[in-house]
Amino acid sequence: MSELANELENVSANKSFGGWHKQYRHYSRTLGCTMRFAVYLPPQAMVGENVPVLYWLSGLTCTDENFMQKAGAQLAAAELGVAIVAPDTSPRGEGVPDDPEAAYDLGLGAGFYVNATEAPWSRHYRMYDYVVNELPELIEAHFPVNDRRAISGHSMGGHGALTIALRNPGRYCSVSAFSPISNPVNCPWGQKAFRAYLGDDQALWQGHDASVLMSEASQSLPTLVDQGMDDDFLERELKPEALEEAARVSGFPLTLRRHEGYDHSYYFIASFIAEHLQFHHRHLIS
Amino acid sequence: MSELANELENVSANKSFGGWHKQYRHYSRTLGCTMRFAVYLPPQAMVGENVPVLYWLSGLTCTDENFMQKAGAQLAAAELGVAIVAPDTSPRGEGVPDDPEAAYDLGLGAGFYVNATEAPWSRHYRMYDYVVNELPELIEAHFPVNDRRAISGHSMGGHGALTIALRNPGRYCSVSAFSPISNPVNCPWGQKAFRAYLGDDQALWQGHDASVLMSEASQSLPTLVDQGMDDDFLERELKPEALEEAARVSGFPLTLRRHEGYDHSYYFIASFIAEHLQFHHRHLIS
Repeated sequence: MSELANELENVSANKSFGGWHKQYRHYSRTLGCTMRFAVYLPPQAMVGENVPVLYWLSGLTCTDENFMQKAGAQLAAAELGVAIVAPDTSPRGEGVPDDPEAAYDLGLGAGFYVNATEAPWSRHYRMYDYVVNELPELIEAHFPVNDRRAISGHSMGGHGALTIALRNPGRYCSVSAFSPISNPVNCPWGQKAFRAYLGDDQALWQGHDASVLMSEASQSLPTLVDQGMDDDFLERELKPEALEEAARVSGFPLTLRRHEGYDHSYYFIASFIAEHLQFHHRHLIS
Repeated sequence: MSELANELENVSANKSFGGWHKQYRHYSRTLGCTMRFAVYLPPQAMVGENVPVLYWLSGLTCTDENFMQKAGAQLAAAELGVAIVAPDTSPRGEGVPDDPEAAYDLGLGAGFYVNATEAPWSRHYRMYDYVVNELPELIEAHFPVNDRRAISGHSMGGHGALTIALRNPGRYCSVSAFSPISNPVNCPWGQKAFRAYLGDDQALWQGHDASVLMSEASQSLPTLVDQGMDDDFLERELKPEALEEAARVSGFPLTLRRHEGYDHSYYFIASFIAEHLQFHHRHLIS
């Protein structure tokens, strides 16, 4: 892989609902490694229209493939004319450090959408900058899209979507999440990752906690969160009640929906992804 | 796993589009091993209605999971009130022989929906009887379904669906296939599998060839086949033109649709699975 910035290598292409699912590799300056991402281009983008983009951030252990293969999002994206971009969940490849114990919740597949400040992570683990800046620049330079952006994600990626949207007012038209890690400073997944990536100063953690950010938000943003009530991680890791309380404090326009019987899997995401796309589409075109 | 016939062990359950995706293990007398299958029960089946069933037969290398995770079929199944049952693609487990070279197109994951007559396959490789008899008996004994059945599949499973439907007039209300191996006696995949499972007498192969069966069919059956035109296996392995010619010979009601740009992947299946469910639903309820 060349280290030339902004060079994309197409590695797969599948026609899907009249549009195209494609995977690309590129050298990321931000992350200092070669990354793969996937893009779904709806039919409208193949006939000269510049379409808005939904960025999808996946959860622990995922790559760009899980969402594109399992969520069934292309149906609604094709109907509505929305592109979807799915990055990987961490830097990868030779020289990129992993957790010494290869735990699923730290290191590879677990970038947590922050810029690490601590060794050995700080060289490569900069998923925040990658998602906020480098990836959209690349997408907007190479694909038939406009500058209307929305962001969504699942679990760790729900945390990523909410925090990135809240930290960057004006950058996204809307944000949504499935089963997000809503209050990472107060749960095991978040504390472990933030301690490793950001160090022991818990004041720094606050800037990447969706509930803290939402409670202090001065600008509003349409926000939809879906949570399954039979999710094994609900009480220990996800804590949607913290997000709800934060929205109450700041008067933030959060719609939080609880769904009886649904779990943490892609079967849950698939059941409601069309509603998320419709929600984002309303704000992307307004 | 107990060897008690008709005993089902539930191994997973995920709520999906208001219904349930569930996986079960059971001891199969037909196959002489423990098998896993998946069932999608639409919301209508959870409130006392007996729903019709679509049997889905997957392609080479698949288990019950590929279709349930990647096809997005639950959306239309939930709307229409159709259950879906997805068996594995071969016997599995201790004592079940595999191809000595562990090729992907023979042995495990490659049962080809026939009853093997040759050593070492004949003890376990009886997927034809399993799909035609044992599995529906089990489903109809344990789940809120009626006796209206349809059958569909992909690639090797498209071959399975077409041949099983054609050999059993009256058993299915309709049949469909994505990218089926339409004329296995004339392609490398089919010849390799039929020689191994059925022996060298090619006259026996004819009874499991969809094009041969369709050309000789005396009873008609609503039949829908979708084929992607950018499918890498199209010319060498799939040969839809043989099926088309067979339908012409016997006047069989085959609808064969060719789709520009689509490949052999689940992205193709997902793009058209709702239309297949609508097609089957029309015949299942009529």
